[in-house]
Amino acid sequence: MKIKSKQYHTIWLKENDPQIVQVIDQRKLPFSFEIMDLKSVSDVFFAIREMVVRGAPLIGITAAYGMYLALFETAEKNFENNVKEKAKFLKSARPTAVNLAFAVDEILRFILKEKDSSQIIEKTLEKVHFLKTQEILFSERIGEFGLELIQKIFNKKGTTVNILTHCNAGWLACIDWGTATAPIYKAHLKGIPVHVWVDETRPRNQGARLTAFELSEEGVPHTVIADNTGGHLMQHGKVDLVIVGSDRTTIGGDVANKIGTYLKALAANDNNVPFYVALPSSTIDWNIEDGLTEIPIEERGAEEVAEIEGVNKSEIKTVRLIPEKSNVVNYGFDVTPARLVSGLITERGICKANKQSIKSLFPEKQ
Amino acid sequence: MKIKSKQYHTIWLKENDPQIVQVIDQRKLPFSFEIMDLKSVSDVFFAIREMVVRGAPLIGITAAYGMYLALFETAEKNFENNVKEKAKFLKSARPTAVNLAFAVDEILRFILKEKDSSQIIEKTLEKVHFLKTQEILFSERIGEFGLELIQKIFNKKGTTVNILTHCNAGWLACIDWGTATAPIYKAHLKGIPVHVWVDETRPRNQGARLTAFELSEEGVPHTVIADNTGGHLMQHGKVDLVIVGSDRTTIGGDVANKIGTYLKALAANDNNVPFYVALPSSTIDWNIEDGLTEIPIEERGAEEVAEIEGVNKSEIKTVRLIPEKSNVVNYGFDVTPARLVSGLITERGICKANKQSIKSLFPEKQ
Repeated sequence: MKIKSKQYHTIWLKENDPQIVQVIDQRKLPFSFEIMDLKSVSDVFFAIREMVVRGAPLIGITAAYGMYLALFETAEKNFENNVKEKAKFLKSARPTAVNLAFAVDEILRFILKEKDSSQIIEKTLEKVHFLKTQEILFSERIGEFGLELIQKIFNKKGTTVNILTHCNAGWLACIDWGTATAPIYKAHLKGIPVHVWVDETRPRNQGARLTAFELSEEGVPHTVIADNTGGHLMQHGKVDLVIVGSDRTTIGGDVANKIGTYLKALAANDNNVPFYVALPSSTIDWNIEDGLTEIPIEERGAEEVAEIEGVNKSEIKTVRLIPEKSNVVNYGFDVTPARLVSGLITERGICKANKQSIKSLFPEKQ
Repeated sequence: MKIKSKQYHTIWLKENDPQIVQVIDQRKLPFSFEIMDLKSVSDVFFAIREMVVRGAPLIGITAAYGMYLALFETAEKNFENNVKEKAKFLKSARPTAVNLAFAVDEILRFILKEKDSSQIIEKTLEKVHFLKTQEILFSERIGEFGLELIQKIFNKKGTTVNILTHCNAGWLACIDWGTATAPIYKAHLKGIPVHVWVDETRPRNQGARLTAFELSEEGVPHTVIADNTGGHLMQHGKVDLVIVGSDRTTIGGDVANKIGTYLKALAANDNNVPFYVALPSSTIDWNIEDGLTEIPIEERGAEEVAEIEGVNKSEIKTVRLIPEKSNVVNYGFDVTPARLVSGLITERGICKANKQSIKSLFPEKQ
């Protein structure tokens, strides 16, 4: 999608230097647009851990590139053990998104299979690019399926469709198009009038910073709101549809997503507003059923709640928000039980948030 | 209650100068402790409008002092009309809290009744002080009744009682003790181990700034959380009780309170966590039943969402949080339907959130 009218992906190989992966430094947006070079496995670890890149699909692809970079720093002696160590290290960068482990394991299996090939580097890169292209395709398909939902609401309502989203499940969380935003971009491009309520999404404000930014750059009408506001809007008929992303979805249909998603799902349920989760199947954890007890929830640094970053006189500044003596806790995600989810928008279509319906779209996963 | 170990109320008459009302400038807390002088009706209007003082009970008492100050600036000619004009002006400062209109009307009636008395100023001041003392007494009683709830949970659980609160319904929102915090202070003073989850309460962060500050100063254990976090905590059994305040409660038991309260009520309901609202009866609007359609919801300036204030290198700084081109909307309150409220803690005891139960505590209100 576009930044300052120029097309970008969130991650790419540097032109003329195949040992450097480049990403948009999302910690700086929207205040500053900077590209970061990732030259090593530890650079990739840092980028994931510190949220230079974030969003389940992008974390997965970045980690895949990390496995590719690992090939440049793994000696032939003990190759298999060393590359496995690096895979383990990358997987430890963040605990909640399942795409991270999936992507790393997929590239690891590929590397171990091809380990005696003279073209292992080229082949691994090709595999990474296959995953990347697939991720874009999945986003596009999610967009097409989700577009039908928006089209139906518009056909019935005849005026602007108001969509609420939480956090950033936009193209910045993916490679292109996004998950939750893909149907919105598709509708906007088709000329359906849409307006997006953007939860600012404390503590890291990915909604106010990233979703608002990318919608701005694409010219999609939107309004930033405090996370507290969605319930009130729904009570007063100002939300036609909620679409969020997911960091991990269980086979039972429970959805781990940015902290606060559960509260919006409750409000949607209480006000008969459809609540959809857009996700590529790489986000589904086929091994677990109960999200509440089985998905590890990342606890992040207190400073993300105690402080906030913004712009003061054109300079990025961090300000402290709470009294010095107060404690703080910072959970990154919560789990929305399947019973509150109207449906999952996947690359193969829309299904109910339950095992049977998910498996009917992905019959090969038995 | 205490600030730096010294006892304060939130509002008082200046020593040796009965034409100056003094308040704590709550816009500066917790970063700076400053007293503001209010010398005129327009000073009082400013203090309410700009949230130098805030919280339904404190808004009411401040407005009552405003009516007292009005006497110094109202000519004898056309006295009745002029004083009515000033009452109307004061009532227009903020729309949601019903205490504001109640307090102004009560003092206005008193002034009109006593308008020919040579001691009208002294008598009006006495009346204002009566309302103030009554407000403190009401907070104390709310504290005693709410204490019983906490005591029961402690008796059953045997360990620390975890209480979640939203916004600031603390002593800073009242004159002393608070509404939602009064039971917490009473329990703490009695030696019951309590721990408070403090919602930061965007956009103005009254939780992170004021509730955290006053709990700190009183030595009550607490943890500040992003507003998105409460649902997750409740899902995992980390909240035993929710207590919030109210800006206006209908006779049907619907509760207008700081935006986001409704979301916490939904989560409490979904997780069988008791959800109580602490309020003096001055907050009850006896004339309306349906909160969702009948309580006006204040829409405040966009800058409260678009910007935030904090401390950077000991200086209070405002930083911008969102892209320049993004729209913002800022609703101050939402309405929690009575069906989600476990009970109302009033100065006369605890009742259900319905007309019959409220009226049984206040039989004179027919």
